[in-house]
Amino acid sequence: MKFATLPNGAPDGRLHVVSRDLRRAAPAAAAETLQAALENWTALAPMLAAEYEAVNAGGGAPFDPAKALAPLPRAWQWLDGSAFESHGDLMDKVFGMEKKERNPKPLMYQGVSDTFLAPAGDAPFVSTDDGIDFEGEFGIIVDSTPMHAGKTEAEKHIRLVVQINDWSLRVLAPIEMKTGFGWVQAKPPCGMAPVAVTPDELGAYWRDCRVDLPLNVTWNDKPFGAANGYAMRFGFDDLVAHAAYSRALVAGTIIGSGTVSNETYRTVGSSCIAERRGIEILDQGEARTAYMTFGDAVGMEVRLPDGTPVFGALRQRVVKA
Amino acid sequence: MKFATLPNGAPDGRLHVVSRDLRRAAPAAAAETLQAALENWTALAPMLAAEYEAVNAGGGAPFDPAKALAPLPRAWQWLDGSAFESHGDLMDKVFGMEKKERNPKPLMYQGVSDTFLAPAGDAPFVSTDDGIDFEGEFGIIVDSTPMHAGKTEAEKHIRLVVQINDWSLRVLAPIEMKTGFGWVQAKPPCGMAPVAVTPDELGAYWRDCRVDLPLNVTWNDKPFGAANGYAMRFGFDDLVAHAAYSRALVAGTIIGSGTVSNETYRTVGSSCIAERRGIEILDQGEARTAYMTFGDAVGMEVRLPDGTPVFGALRQRVVKA
Repeated sequence: MKFATLPNGAPDGRLHVVSRDLRRAAPAAAAETLQAALENWTALAPMLAAEYEAVNAGGGAPFDPAKALAPLPRAWQWLDGSAFESHGDLMDKVFGMEKKERNPKPLMYQGVSDTFLAPAGDAPFVSTDDGIDFEGEFGIIVDSTPMHAGKTEAEKHIRLVVQINDWSLRVLAPIEMKTGFGWVQAKPPCGMAPVAVTPDELGAYWRDCRVDLPLNVTWNDKPFGAANGYAMRFGFDDLVAHAAYSRALVAGTIIGSGTVSNETYRTVGSSCIAERRGIEILDQGEARTAYMTFGDAVGMEVRLPDGTPVFGALRQRVVKA
Repeated sequence: MKFATLPNGAPDGRLHVVSRDLRRAAPAAAAETLQAALENWTALAPMLAAEYEAVNAGGGAPFDPAKALAPLPRAWQWLDGSAFESHGDLMDKVFGMEKKERNPKPLMYQGVSDTFLAPAGDAPFVSTDDGIDFEGEFGIIVDSTPMHAGKTEAEKHIRLVVQINDWSLRVLAPIEMKTGFGWVQAKPPCGMAPVAVTPDELGAYWRDCRVDLPLNVTWNDKPFGAANGYAMRFGFDDLVAHAAYSRALVAGTIIGSGTVSNETYRTVGSSCIAERRGIEILDQGEARTAYMTFGDAVGMEVRLPDGTPVFGALRQRVVKA
């Protein structure tokens, strides 16, 4: 199944069922909002599946992903991992941090969840001095998950896969990181691609609770990276179990992969500017690529090998707050 | 004004206006929930004030604070500061962290906000091996606060003052802290005292955006600490402005002071066990007080010097999840 949320004036918007090719959509009859669907997923999924079949058969109306809100315009919880090791290694270079011992547990922080920006809207920032950067990620959304759920149980609660742009302020990030408290100022609200999909929509490309597809990233419409999502050191099942160790996860909790990154970054490129700067430090002794400026745009898109769009295109523009 | 939320089967409960002496309460007519009141605070406050006068004049019904939920049983955002320097100094001892340079900015992390536990309920934990500890704090709740609000504007958005028990798992905390990502597993859902109050209810004891009153803490009903809330290095206005630097704060965002702690900890005691352990390390070379075990209870209460109860009593019991 594929879902989008269209604006209706309410903070959670109006849930729509979207056709596999993202060309048609119909307001979901089974649930008013995606949050409501997630709160009663097991009971509602069969009805939503029938609605999905109808829209795939030509029902509904034309769908314009650029008009969508984030599939969950707000969520009760957003926990972001950092599961790609080549990303962590490069970030240590950029931030001038000592290379840390490999942590036996997943890395994860809690970020702002009350706002996920629309996929084709503006992202407001105070100052370009803060080092404005994008981070292309995959994420999953769970339904209600009990405290201390193990990895096997955790996997069963993964209901949707999403694609996220985790905006990051790179000048502020190492300052906050050194306190040990994690990021607040360095992590403004994320953007989210317009369509959330059930894992089965990825077919064989949902593998070991990872998205085995390249995340195509553009900066001002020029190709910037196409790293594959499979290289996560921990799968989303591990990330959910980690998050649930001492807290139940409410329905609609979103968990991110961290910036998608591959060891082959010199050929596949990167999903954030900071990584490119890390590569420049390695190869040329210093970072040369500047962070974003007002008016810049980042694009992200994922397709199956046969061209089928998955999450729809995200294209966010950096504007002055 | 004073507010409590009583259970009605819905996740946000039912807002009640509570008399100054916490003896009487009536369902609020102006707003169904505290979240709804905060989303329209300026318009609703005069009506709520009239309802508050009525309940102070003997209206409503008897109020039992032990039956209340947290005033906000869930919130879109919970950001916790660490504004008491003597707490930070002692925690560095306990965690074996190097003494850090004094940070020019407030310390703050984002914690789980989708659940605030009831003040007189059980708090579930997986294992006593994790170092179960309480943290007595003050907190404030804002209405909608724009991105990049300065300190003066920030202060105007502080609508309510609350008292929080920030449950902490001390064995997990330093592991997560060393990653720089902040805490996820080490910070399960907090408890909140039953009554939220407008700052004017504190009279002269709301001073420089700080609560100038002792927080009385008991462990298994024995006095444990009575540190005063005024010693914050940054006031709540600073904390709100810090939080809002790169994000708008939605109505109902809760910001905590961090564990209330005074330099005179040897006489006033502490608001968490870890601090006592830090003092033991300083004075006796090693920590001697063990963390909590299943069945233990922590109590917290604040009164004005004339005995008027402020937030009502919190008493949470540690149970096996």
